[in-house]
Amino acid sequence: MSSATLSIDLTALIANWRALDAMTACETGAVVKADAYGLGIDRVARALADAGVRHFFVALTREGVALRKAVGPGLRISVLSGHMAGDSGLIRAHDLTPMLNSVDQMLRHVENLAGAPFGIQLDTGMNRLGMEPGEWAALRDVAVGQNPVLVTSHLACGDEPDHPMNRQQLSVFNEMTNGLDVPLSLSATAGILLGKDYHFSLTRPGIGLYGGAPFSDARPVVSLDLPVIQIRDLAPGETVGYGNTWTAKRPTRIATLGAGYADGLIRAMGTTAQVYAEGTACPVVGRVSMDLITADVTDLAAEPAHLSILCPEQDVDTLAGAAGTIGYEILTSLGPRYARMYRE
Amino acid sequence: MSSATLSIDLTALIANWRALDAMTACETGAVVKADAYGLGIDRVARALADAGVRHFFVALTREGVALRKAVGPGLRISVLSGHMAGDSGLIRAHDLTPMLNSVDQMLRHVENLAGAPFGIQLDTGMNRLGMEPGEWAALRDVAVGQNPVLVTSHLACGDEPDHPMNRQQLSVFNEMTNGLDVPLSLSATAGILLGKDYHFSLTRPGIGLYGGAPFSDARPVVSLDLPVIQIRDLAPGETVGYGNTWTAKRPTRIATLGAGYADGLIRAMGTTAQVYAEGTACPVVGRVSMDLITADVTDLAAEPAHLSILCPEQDVDTLAGAAGTIGYEILTSLGPRYARMYRE
Repeated sequence: MSSATLSIDLTALIANWRALDAMTACETGAVVKADAYGLGIDRVARALADAGVRHFFVALTREGVALRKAVGPGLRISVLSGHMAGDSGLIRAHDLTPMLNSVDQMLRHVENLAGAPFGIQLDTGMNRLGMEPGEWAALRDVAVGQNPVLVTSHLACGDEPDHPMNRQQLSVFNEMTNGLDVPLSLSATAGILLGKDYHFSLTRPGIGLYGGAPFSDARPVVSLDLPVIQIRDLAPGETVGYGNTWTAKRPTRIATLGAGYADGLIRAMGTTAQVYAEGTACPVVGRVSMDLITADVTDLAAEPAHLSILCPEQDVDTLAGAAGTIGYEILTSLGPRYARMYRE
Repeated sequence: MSSATLSIDLTALIANWRALDAMTACETGAVVKADAYGLGIDRVARALADAGVRHFFVALTREGVALRKAVGPGLRISVLSGHMAGDSGLIRAHDLTPMLNSVDQMLRHVENLAGAPFGIQLDTGMNRLGMEPGEWAALRDVAVGQNPVLVTSHLACGDEPDHPMNRQQLSVFNEMTNGLDVPLSLSATAGILLGKDYHFSLTRPGIGLYGGAPFSDARPVVSLDLPVIQIRDLAPGETVGYGNTWTAKRPTRIATLGAGYADGLIRAMGTTAQVYAEGTACPVVGRVSMDLITADVTDLAAEPAHLSILCPEQDVDTLAGAAGTIGYEILTSLGPRYARMYRE
């Protein structure tokens, strides 16, 4: 193995989708934006479609185009950034469903693609995407007359179950959609876990499919093995890596591994992360370089040919903790230089 | 413009290469690993080859294969991770030059590709890649008999000109190569700036080509413009984004922009970064999301259609500072969803 290998367990991914689907009485879609959270939208979306997903969500029109090519016609592909200027032709050609976020987007859609499917995203307090309550009050009757296929909103604090923002957004969403005869959706993974008040007609899990918090029962989906380029012995006092930030305190054996921050091994993980040899932890030492990291393998009985940085002992959330971020960013940073292997 | 646009100024890139070349009396190569620091190896390498670069450096064999397809035969492509197990066929087929880092790699090369070109990388104290002094002493005569095309090492602290490690590595490199009749190379961008003792036969600039520190006279190469998806007005006390981490203190106008940490807008940049409207700074507010960021545009006279996050007012190093990292990581994190536009 000359390059690092990212293994993606599609069976685990499907099991996660089914587990999330089983928690609700409604339809369960799937969020596959950002190249299916870094795991490869073609393979991930086809596996999910085979398992029964009928409604996919992406961030951008261009992602919708790529997804349509992967899954073919018939499944719904909704675009969360809505109907952006210049995208009407692609939206029509690839049968995409923009989630309209503003009056501007509504006008653009009606003007350019009258009669074509669309959804509406409402802002219930996150102040990021979606129509404001006042805007919606003025537009609601006209918009509903155009037959939206879905009305959604998004929770800002869903991963903190006790945060009062959740019930507040739920209450605003109920008010804004009161009396509507349109399918409704409020929840991504975190909202599914908040219980049935949050489920409505459709849920849209993302991170939970890919094995990340807050779905703590998720099966891990990714593992990542790094090739050892060489191993060297250091005397006490010798330093490793850029800036001489790490100094050997004992006779030390250092392995140089073939992946770095250009591959999404976020530089901030510094020396808090571990790599694993068949379950035995070896600390990362010295600075993360662009293409390389170095680890202290002194205590291993044998010289390893590769070491794992995502594995049962260190999942995406644990590695994210070492880098001061969240599992989502670990996943979406996984770089293009890995050999990607799919298990199904 | 519906997607974010990354503009790459190839004229500036070539000007940077020429400026670095003019600082030395020796040959100047170019490091184009990690997809030419995120900017696209095909276009970048072809522009550099047209400008006169005859020796390219990549990290991995696979990168060398892609580069050979882009630039054609005749130019030298050296692979810094050396001759890895399983790569002999690709190395031969694409005329790559592995930089051998260990006795193991030397044996593999001689066994599988006797007579094929190779270089040797020496470790002069960074303890990351390259042969150790003791290893080299034992192997040197045999290795030189096989006609290496280049002998290199790499500085650990080159961006700190007064760091004693620089002179120490220089001294070790001189000792290890004393009497050799082989082209030598010690310096990347930082080493070029350290002066002629560090130049030897060939330099290998990377970051300086792409406009980053420590080459402070570099011309900026990248700019990055983000589309505005929508703009909304907030009352004092309203919050923005995940976790409600930002609260409006005054009547505030918030723009939602179409790029996030999945596009390399590192999540750690939090609210320290700015976006710019024709030179006017607007603070990023709230958490960076996967596909979106939000900015306070209250003080702008007009509603912008897009805002810039890499621009003359905020270069890769400034943005890196906001994210607690270095310009290199900003560049190599630039994601695949941007429309890439090349100016030449």
